[in-house]
Amino acid sequence: MYAIDRLIKNIREKNNPTVMGLDPRPDLLPPFLRPEAVTHETLAGAYYKFNLALLEACADIIPAVKFQVACYEALGLPGLAALLESQRVARDLGYFIINDAKRSDIASSADFYAKAWLTDEAWIGDALTLNPYLGSDSLDPFLKVAREHKKMLFVLLRTSNPGAQDFQDLELQNNQKFYETVGDSLSRWGEGDIHESGYSDLGAVVGATWPSEGLELRKRLPSVFFLVPGYGAQGAGASEVTGTFDHNGVGALINSSRGLMGAWKQGEDAEGLLFAQATREAALAMAEDLRSVLNDAKDPDGAEASRENNHE
Amino acid sequence: MYAIDRLIKNIREKNNPTVMGLDPRPDLLPPFLRPEAVTHETLAGAYYKFNLALLEACADIIPAVKFQVACYEALGLPGLAALLESQRVARDLGYFIINDAKRSDIASSADFYAKAWLTDEAWIGDALTLNPYLGSDSLDPFLKVAREHKKMLFVLLRTSNPGAQDFQDLELQNNQKFYETVGDSLSRWGEGDIHESGYSDLGAVVGATWPSEGLELRKRLPSVFFLVPGYGAQGAGASEVTGTFDHNGVGALINSSRGLMGAWKQGEDAEGLLFAQATREAALAMAEDLRSVLNDAKDPDGAEASRENNHE
Repeated sequence: MYAIDRLIKNIREKNNPTVMGLDPRPDLLPPFLRPEAVTHETLAGAYYKFNLALLEACADIIPAVKFQVACYEALGLPGLAALLESQRVARDLGYFIINDAKRSDIASSADFYAKAWLTDEAWIGDALTLNPYLGSDSLDPFLKVAREHKKMLFVLLRTSNPGAQDFQDLELQNNQKFYETVGDSLSRWGEGDIHESGYSDLGAVVGATWPSEGLELRKRLPSVFFLVPGYGAQGAGASEVTGTFDHNGVGALINSSRGLMGAWKQGEDAEGLLFAQATREAALAMAEDLRSVLNDAKDPDGAEASRENNHE
Repeated sequence: MYAIDRLIKNIREKNNPTVMGLDPRPDLLPPFLRPEAVTHETLAGAYYKFNLALLEACADIIPAVKFQVACYEALGLPGLAALLESQRVARDLGYFIINDAKRSDIASSADFYAKAWLTDEAWIGDALTLNPYLGSDSLDPFLKVAREHKKMLFVLLRTSNPGAQDFQDLELQNNQKFYETVGDSLSRWGEGDIHESGYSDLGAVVGATWPSEGLELRKRLPSVFFLVPGYGAQGAGASEVTGTFDHNGVGALINSSRGLMGAWKQGEDAEGLLFAQATREAALAMAEDLRSVLNDAKDPDGAEASRENNHE
């Protein structure tokens, strides 16, 4: 089965368009898991235990997991070993795995990154995030390997950070914004890979923090599936992401990282002893939150009303 | 000493603006170094031996080395262990080390990548390549860590691949090209870090394969140092890179990867037994080639004549 169809099947089975971001940081670890002597090795070991507990706690309710590779790379080889072990656990538990590495390169170097991330021979995953700045021939090697191995790609399009406006929003002579042109290119390059679900294996990253851009992009790129960061800790709620879904309530996968990993901090469990349970409860609340706006979206009148609100 | 001043000092001492790209691939290994049973472990071990020999053979004539991280990441943990060991050797031998990782992310994730690549705590190096698509707040964490640790950054600007035209060349409403606006931003963001050499610690990647763009960018961004890939195997010669240097013959570092690593393939040494010596000879020839056009560039009349030729 193609990656995009596997992803949508997972989302439908769990009735939950959530991806859990596993971006471990020392301050997100519950105190009892923090190593006494902090080294790359001990911290990486704690990250793995933390991930393992969260992955096990949410396997029946969350369809996908996203690993922020930077968190692991910062700890060198022990960090990347913890990433690999965490990917193995996620795979065994049936999660759709997105490696958020934001790689970009050209020619044979792009091919080496594709081999690293899309063949399960070095790292394990179903999808990889990419940066489009280098142009079409930087994406071709990734598309080729993704097609061969039934994996998918999410290309940075309109990102969740304030600085997204610096370059992505620049107005072109054809009166389009830069990211709109990038989006049109992605749509065109993915045309050959539109599968059963109506979506292609070439997806895009669209930040939840810009609801009107998200809504416009959903209309503009009907076959491009969106990975949507920015829900929760970055400030967006369910109403901000409504516009990234289609009228069937699919087309987007909403990421929460700190909101899920750090859920134990919101309760009275100061030692974090029940951290995985806190994450599970936060995940159930997030799923409920998303389902409520998706039900509105399936009702055309309700959807329009809700979307109008996003523009205020 | 600031990174950019260290780099320029190294270049002056060797009288050679060359960076050796260590982008190992199975077909670049001399036959006697190729493992009989190819696994990630055996191939990574061969890459390390290959790098070690090339680094030792050229330490007195080449000032800098660039590691293409994709080649190592494709081999998983053993590959990255070989990268780290190679970085240690390069550091011991006095090379200025550029890690060509083309990373990009935002907020704390950008900070984790900066810690990974700019502190010598996870990986070892003096400079890192970055992708600008995410905007200013994606570069800020890197700039902050680079300043603290006296490292430098090279941001992708106008790259050497044909696809560079897809997005980087798009015309904006202000009649500038997209990459020119990115370049102006880099120049502005680096203003606070212009050091003794007249260059800032925020450099740019400018492909040798586009000589007129290189010349225009040199004039437009007088304090931005250029890392210039594309010489040799990608088709550019010394005359194509002349315009990326300033009138003092500094301001650019010219990369050759396959042309140096694969030099043994050009001779009659089919077994590659003298591969490191072949690389040394190719490096000496490249230095001579670059010096010849730089001498022209220092002579204003000669420089203009040479630059006009680049526009043909």
